[in-house]
Order: sequence, then structure tokens, then C-alpha cells
Amino acid sequence: MLNSAILLISCPDRKGLVKEISSFIADNGGNIVSFDQHIDEQTKTFLARVEWDLEDFKIPREEIEREFSKVAEKFSMNFKLSFSDEVKKVAIFVSKQLHCFWDLMQRFYSGELKGEVRLVISNHEDGRKIAEFFKVPYYYIPKTKENKEEAEREELKLLEEHAIDLVVLARYMQILSPKFVNAYRNRIINIHHSFLPAFPGAKPYERAFKKGVKIIGATAHYVTEELDEGPIIEQDVVRVNHKDSLKDFIRKGKDLEKVVLARAVKWHLEDKILVYNGKTVVFE
Amino acid sequence: MLNSAILLISCPDRKGLVKEISSFIADNGGNIVSFDQHIDEQTKTFLARVEWDLEDFKIPREEIEREFSKVAEKFSMNFKLSFSDEVKKVAIFVSKQLHCFWDLMQRFYSGELKGEVRLVISNHEDGRKIAEFFKVPYYYIPKTKENKEEAEREELKLLEEHAIDLVVLARYMQILSPKFVNAYRNRIINIHHSFLPAFPGAKPYERAFKKGVKIIGATAHYVTEELDEGPIIEQDVVRVNHKDSLKDFIRKGKDLEKVVLARAVKWHLEDKILVYNGKTVVFE
Amino acid sequence: MLNSAILLISCPDRKGLVKEISSFIADNGGNIVSFDQHIDEQTKTFLARVEWDLEDFKIPREEIEREFSKVAEKFSMNFKLSFSDEVKKVAIFVSKQLHCFWDLMQRFYSGELKGEVRLVISNHEDGRKIAEFFKVPYYYIPKTKENKEEAEREELKLLEEHAIDLVVLARYMQILSPKFVNAYRNRIINIHHSFLPAFPGAKPYERAFKKGVKIIGATAHYVTEELDEGPIIEQDVVRVNHKDSLKDFIRKGKDLEKVVLARAVKWHLEDKILVYNGKTVVFE
Amino acid sequence: MLNSAILLISCPDRKGLVKEISSFIADNGGNIVSFDQHIDEQTKTFLARVEWDLEDFKIPREEIEREFSKVAEKFSMNFKLSFSDEVKKVAIFVSKQLHCFWDLMQRFYSGELKGEVRLVISNHEDGRKIAEFFKVPYYYIPKTKENKEEAEREELKLLEEHAIDLVVLARYMQILSPKFVNAYRNRIINIHHSFLPAFPGAKPYERAFKKGVKIIGATAHYVTEELDEGPIIEQDVVRVNHKDSLKDFIRKGKDLEKVVLARAVKWHLEDKILVYNGKTVVFE
Repeated sequence: MLNSAILLISCPDRKGLVKEISSFIADNGGNIVSFDQHIDEQTKTFLARVEWDLEDFKIPREEIEREFSKVAEKFSMNFKLSFSDEVKKVAIFVSKQLHCFWDLMQRFYSGELKGEVRLVISNHEDGRKIAEFFKVPYYYIPKTKENKEEAEREELKLLEEHAIDLVVLARYMQILSPKFVNAYRNRIINIHHSFLPAFPGAKPYERAFKKGVKIIGATAHYVTEELDEGPIIEQDVVRVNHKDSLKDFIRKGKDLEKVVLARAVKWHLEDKILVYNGKTVVFE
Repeated sequence: MLNSAILLISCPDRKGLVKEISSFIADNGGNIVSFDQHIDEQTKTFLARVEWDLEDFKIPREEIEREFSKVAEKFSMNFKLSFSDEVKKVAIFVSKQLHCFWDLMQRFYSGELKGEVRLVISNHEDGRKIAEFFKVPYYYIPKTKENKEEAEREELKLLEEHAIDLVVLARYMQILSPKFVNAYRNRIINIHHSFLPAFPGAKPYERAFKKGVKIIGATAHYVTEELDEGPIIEQDVVRVNHKDSLKDFIRKGKDLEKVVLARAVKWHLEDKILVYNGKTVVFE
Repeated sequence: MLNSAILLISCPDRKGLVKEISSFIADNGGNIVSFDQHIDEQTKTFLARVEWDLEDFKIPREEIEREFSKVAEKFSMNFKLSFSDEVKKVAIFVSKQLHCFWDLMQRFYSGELKGEVRLVISNHEDGRKIAEFFKVPYYYIPKTKENKEEAEREELKLLEEHAIDLVVLARYMQILSPKFVNAYRNRIINIHHSFLPAFPGAKPYERAFKKGVKIIGATAHYVTEELDEGPIIEQDVVRVNHKDSLKDFIRKGKDLEKVVLARAVKWHLEDKILVYNGKTVVFE
Repeated sequence: MLNSAILLISCPDRKGLVKEISSFIADNGGNIVSFDQHIDEQTKTFLARVEWDLEDFKIPREEIEREFSKVAEKFSMNFKLSFSDEVKKVAIFVSKQLHCFWDLMQRFYSGELKGEVRLVISNHEDGRKIAEFFKVPYYYIPKTKENKEEAEREELKLLEEHAIDLVVLARYMQILSPKFVNAYRNRIINIHHSFLPAFPGAKPYERAFKKGVKIIGATAHYVTEELDEGPIIEQDVVRVNHKDSLKDFIRKGKDLEKVVLARAVKWHLEDKILVYNGKTVVFE
């Protein structure tokens, strides 16, 4: 099992950046496993993901960030350092539709998703049995217009206590407040059951059915203050035809929602996503 | 080569409709080649496409419509009768983007599309050489705000003179007037370079690029008075990634536009499309 | 909830077949919900699926088969009658790869798949906990070269006791004997982890990886005496690229296997599959 | 328009390779546009494509190869240098099926494919009119068992005279001799009308139809001595159903063949393909 360090970097383009980064790694004894870099032509921005083997790397792991900061400062780099053996702590929020929840749990359980599901939060009791099967604590926090603020405080407290790195909204049918979103910026992934920007908001399948589209989709995105407007991480689609009823749309869509959300969560956990300019770069 | 008659039928559902239709055919000596029928559950509407071999059919072709009308009246059926050996007359409208035009012409030329392209109308001269290669008359009718009404009159006159059955807007960058649309209702097919209802109107690729979608699409639809709002006939999509520039979006999109438009035109020419309730039923 | 009867019919084509079938239904007071019929041009075979509402249908359900046989005999029809409210009894066979098993159980549990999983049979103990969660009996029947015959006898006895209608091999890594296959002809569905006929037999992902294919697939088929050669019910594919390791092939493939198998099982349970000429007709 | 140099590199992995390559570029004043590198884990091979802007690059273009060879030798690198403004010379071979030929010509004509089609060679006269439209010389070289050797000699002479870089077999229904293949190793692209390795050789659509597959495909690959066994460059697929006749398979397949071949040719012309270990790495 490879033990590696990962850098996600964005900065204004200029000559010598690849050399600087790769020299930092090579000069300290690291072996680059992958170097994936390109330039956003419109904004002349350098974008890269670099991963290197930590075996024989001379800088102790806890000092790498500080050491690389010196390079980063010189070139005005934004960077994020992570390690392949870090296990991120995950909270899953669910409501009554449980297919994504179930699917995610299996993927975590089988080791396909690298992360530790520390807790499940729900405004309903429906998912408790599944959580119990997987031995994950389940917090029932009902939400009404009146108690929303207090409920969120409770949720944020739980997230903090568990040092949560990633919040996954697995068909959680509640809108989070700007305060919540802000506390976990680019760390909350939502699955929306349409091919955004088509059909944002409520009842997308109903609207797709009424419109008579020939293909339906699902979209995983980071949550921002604006509903269904955050940076898109992944999308996928499936064909529907005139014999498909609304019920068929919903059934076919569920399979999409599961795989699209799972891919987005996987990429986030493996530090393959760079958020930039309201969009994502996925170094897949 | 099969010589067949085709009925597209919609009406309120009730018992005995399949029997009535199939008896009309069988009792007159016809052999049904395909019978494709289902019910729209929401509106309880019977929807069907029936095709039968005309060999040995006792009713002369020119009297079938009248004869079937008797059945249709009894059951309040909307129906459209056509014949597989009829060659529909087609007009293609183009501007400066010629990939769809070229693609369609090849398909007509090779016999894949069954129809006769009687004329090409364009507000630019760019496509003339292609039209000449395929020996199709090319009418250059420039359009400005000032002359739009007169230009359309000229266009409509040409369509009438050539007894045009189908108008194909192959990336024709002009909006048709309600009067024009009305004269060829459900007989004008447009290709829009987005996955509708996402990105209707101008510059869809630019907007898709800015939004950071992971999949782009194209949509063929019948033209109605409202821009890019008509009944969708066909859609398809292709994956894009963060390395794709806007230019790549446009290039990848062109391949979509070609096949999506070609499929829609093919289905229309083969009488496989039933427009119903603002949507299409495609008996593919 | 619709209570309907379904006929799957194949026979030599001739005039009047649709009329005969639809008259049988209409004359006895049934309302056809869908009539999906076409002709195999190469063999001149009439192929159809008809579904009608049993409300007000005059023939008692238990006599329909006998009554329709009279029509069928006259026209040399092969037919299969079933009812939408019948719940088929299902046995699932699994080994150590449990993703398909898990996925199927969820779909049965959530009601997406209409059927009753009566028992699970496995040559390993790995799946027991999942079966227990869903409260389905789990039979551990290990298999070696020596005991294979006896093990199969035990399996067949269980299937018989439970009056099993459908056997699903959900990544069951054992080959069934011709005797077994014969006892459940066209009632055993297997999922093979390749795009058949490419890579039949063992280790398809390894071979696909070595070959350098750009797309991998999965295939659900009815089991026949010849390994991976039975009638194909459904296939699907996913793109791979040069950065994907063998492990990635396997991971991506799992998602395919799940949806492809689930679709095939669903269609079988809803009597949408007609096996004909070594192929399937799926009236989707 | 960017004027850039491109390096495709493969070699045994070791520390410092990215640093060495990027230093060669940066130290000579070049700005890297993209650096796409990964390791084949099974063989521990370093694989990379690097592109850099030649503006301000101090080494004259004609000396870059010699200069970089010094780096390459030190690390046992295989490398291929090319320039974005080089226009490759292309020969297209066709027979009687002309859809791919036509499609490619449009793409060259519209500038989507960067290359110069110097000549078309065919064993039939059918494509001459298309070649004339695009003003490309058309050589009619019929082939029989008897004259095959001589015909190939003539073909090779033409390729040499025109200094052809890439040979495209656009549904050319003749097998090339090992001698021919050897002279243009990894420079002959063929389109095969199946999803290889399924249905290699003759009549793939017929066999796919008979087999009852639910999806058909097309494969572009480099030609080797073994028929349809060369390194796969690109594949794509389309769904078929039971109503599709063999004719429909062929029609749907044509659209696949066109786009799959066009993508492969595009990537070759843009030096995005590295052939390695009997497979391709496509730095798309």
C-alpha cells in the first residue's frame, strides 16, 4: 500500500512552476507517482495535482506543509496538502429516501470508499436500522421552521465533536443555512436528482417528465449559499422513453444518484478535486 | 422493399380499440407488420403506431383515409395516415455553421434518410458549394431586422411552390415568426446545441463552459412560437472534462448535433413521431 | 394498483393475429393496457407482448390459459400467460463477491423488484450477515469437485421445496451441471463481468486490462449448458482509461454488474422477456 | 495560436524524472503548458506527455531533439518529439463504404483535424467524386490475389513520394502485408466495426446480430501483422434492441465508426498517443 503525499495547487501561470514543485520533491528524496498539470487558458491559471511516495522522503510529514509554504509563497500558490493514509471523518445526512445512504454505507464497508463514517444525522427515524447494521451512531434531529436554528446548532456541535472532514447530503431534504454552509465550505457534497442547471429546486423528476425530456440526469455538487448552484463535481445521465411513467423516471434516477454521489465522495476523499472559479477540476 | 401503410393514433382510452383497428386492417386483407401501443396513465390516452403491408389490401390507397375515418370518428381518434413509399419533400435552412447540413446531405445521398431535399435556404452564401455538389438548389435570402418579414414571405413562397413537407433548421441562426411556425406546425425540426431545458437561447456552449458542467448535450425539437420550448424529439450527451476548453466543447458538441438532428429527421420521415400534450411519443 | 394479465406470444406470422388476440381480450371485457408487437423479418416470426386489465374480464383467472389455448392452437402460437399480481419466488446464489447480492436485496426490500426472495444459497459463509439483516434463510452448501453432484442435489431439493420460479446467480463462482440448467431452463440468470462475447470464462477484467480495451462491460444472460453462451438479456458498459489500474477496472465493473443484473431480474419478474432463437426479445 | 513542442516519454521509473524534464524546459526559457504523467504500476514504467510554449525557448527547434537526447540517454528514456505547428501528411485508403472517408474529409476541410490529406488510394472508383470535391488526388489501385504484391509496391511508392506520416484505413477492405505494416508501424490506423476483441475479422455486424447482443461497438486501432489485434486507440458503443434489424445494426454502427475513427486520427495528429506494451496511452 502506497503511502504518499498529495498537493493540489493553483496559481497564476509563469515559467518554471513544474520545475520548482518537482525539485522540491526530488531534492528531498521523494518519487513522484503522478503529476497532472494544465493551464486554464482563459484566466492563465496553473492547475496541478502532484502525488509522491513518502518512502525515503527526508522532510518529516508534519513539516512538509511549512516547508512547501516557502515555495508556495514565492509563486503565490494556493495549495492543499494531504496524505493518502489519512482517513477522513465523514458525516452522512439523510431523510426518508435511503437508497444513496445504503449505497454509500456498502462502499465504505467494502473499503471502496476510504473514510470513516462517524455519524449519521437525520430528520427522520427511517434510516436507523441501516445505521445500526453498519454500527454507526444515528442522530435523529427533526426539523421544523421553528426549531431549524437550534437543530443546526446541535448538528454543528456534533460535527465539531467528531472532527468531521466531509458532510454528505445523501438525499437530505433540508436546506442548510448560510452559516452552516460557510463552516464547511467545499466540504459538503449534495446529490441533486436532475441534470443541473436543468430543473434546480423541488420536484425535478416531475418537471422532467412534464417537459418530455429524453434523458434524465443526476448531479453531485458542493453546497453553497445558493440552492443547487454550487460547483458541479460529477454528473451522469440515463435515457428515458415515452413508455416510462414518472415512477420509472424516479426508479431509473435512483441508480444515477447512487453512482454519481459515490464518485464525487470518492474523489473528495482521495483529494482529487480542486475548486476553482466556481467550478471543479477533477484530477481523475 | 415493403410497401406499407402507417397509422399514428391518439384518443381517449376505452375497451376494444386494438380490436377495432386490427379488424379494420385484417378484414380488408392487410398484414400487420408492427403494432406498438400503450396508454398514458396520467391522461388515460390511447397512443399507437400501426404499420401494415399493403400487398393484398383491398381498399385502394387513396381511399384508406376516408374509410378509416369512419372508425376514427366512432372513437374520437386523432390519426395520421402515411405510406412507406411516399418520399417527403424537405427544405433545409442553414447559416454559417455547416456541419449538420453536410451530414444530412450525406445521409440523404446515401439513402439512409428517405426524402428528397428540394431546396436549401440560407442567409449566407457559405453553404452554396455543398449544395452544388449534391445538386440541390440553393437560395440565398439574407435577413436583417428590416427585411425579415419580406424574407420570410419569400421563404414561405418557395416552400409552397416545392410542396415542402418538412423544414429542417440545420443550425439556422434566425428565429422564425409565429406566422411561419404556424404554417408548418410540427413540421419544422430545429437542433439546439444544449441539453434542454438547460441553456436555451444564445451561446449555450459558452454558458455550459462557464457553469462547469461535466456533460454537454444537444436537443432536436419541433419549433413552436416560444424559443427552444417546442416538443423534444431527441437528445444526446457527451462527457467533457476540465482540460476541455470552450473550443473543445464546441467541437465535441458538433458530433452530437449531427447525430441528434439526423435521428429526429429520420424518425419524422418514417412517421414514427406522435406529438401529444406538448411532448413527443417516438415509436422507435 | 393495476391487476393485469400478460401474454408473451411467438408464432409463424400470418394475417389476422393481432385481431385474433385483441378480440379474445375485448370480447371478454378486457381493456388492453399495452400491445407491443413486431415481426422478425429473417424468420417471419410474429412476436408480441400484450397486457390487459383484468377488471371486468369475464373469464376467471384460472381459466384464461385454457381458453386462450384454443386461439393459440389455431395459429400454432407459443405463449406464456402470467399475472401482474403474482409474486415470483426467487433464490439467490452467491459466493464471496457480495456487491450484487447486497444490491438485489435492497431492491427487493424497497419494492423496486417485485418478488419474494425465499432463500440464499452459497458455497461460502460470507453473505450470511446480509441475509440475516434482510431476514432471508441462508444455506451454506460448500462445493468441491468431489461433492458437487451431491451439493447440487441438495440445492435442487431446496429450490423445489420453495417452489422457486427464478434462480439468480449473483456472482456465484460455480458452474452448474446440465441437469441443473435443464431443470430451470430460461429461469436462471447469471451476471458475467465482461461485454460478451468478449472475454467469456475466467478473469475477464484481467484479460480486458491486458488487452488495453477502452471500455469495459457486464452482461446478464440466461444460463445454458455452454458457459457464458446463453441468451443475452442486458449489457452495459463504462469507459476506462490508461490511468485506471486493474483494481479500477474491477471497481468500475462492480457498478455495472449491479445495474445490469438488476435490470435483467426486473424484466424477468415482470414477464418482459421472450426467449426466441437463442436470443431474447425484451419488451421494455 | 500556440506554437509548442511536445514530448512523449516512456522509461523505467526512478526518482527525479519530472525534475529533469521540467528543468530542461525551464532552464532553456520554455513555459510548460501541460505536464501529464503517471506510472504503470505493474511494470514500474514512467509515462508522460509534456507540452511547452516555444516562444522565448532558447534552443532552436532543429536542435531540441539532439539536446534532449542527452537527458534521455541518462535515464534510458524512449521519447518522441513533435511540434504543434507541424502539419502531418495523411493518406486515406478506402473501398466502397464511404461514410468514414466523407466524414474525415469534412473534418480536415473544416480544420477540426490538423493535417494535410495528400492522397486517397482505393481498390474501387466509388470515392473519386468525393476526392475531387475536396481536390485531393485519387489513385485507383485495384487488388486481386494475383496482383496484391505489385499493388502494394505501387502504394508504398506513393506513400514515400508524398512523405506520408499517417495512413488511415477508412473501411478499406483489404489486408495489408507484414512488409507494408512494418514500414508504417504505429502509423496505420484502422477502424473495425465491432467492439474488439468481440467479433474480429469478417462480418462483425452479422455475427453481433445473430448473437443477440444488446450493444454494438466500433474500434480504432493501430494495424499490426495480426488481423484486428493491434493496440486499441479508441472504442465506442451504441445500444440496439430487438426491433433493430441487421440493417439497423449497420446504420447505427456507421455513426460509431465515423466518430471513433475521427477521434483516433485526431489524437494521432496531435501526438497524444503513446504506444506501450501492446496498448496505447492516450493523453487526452
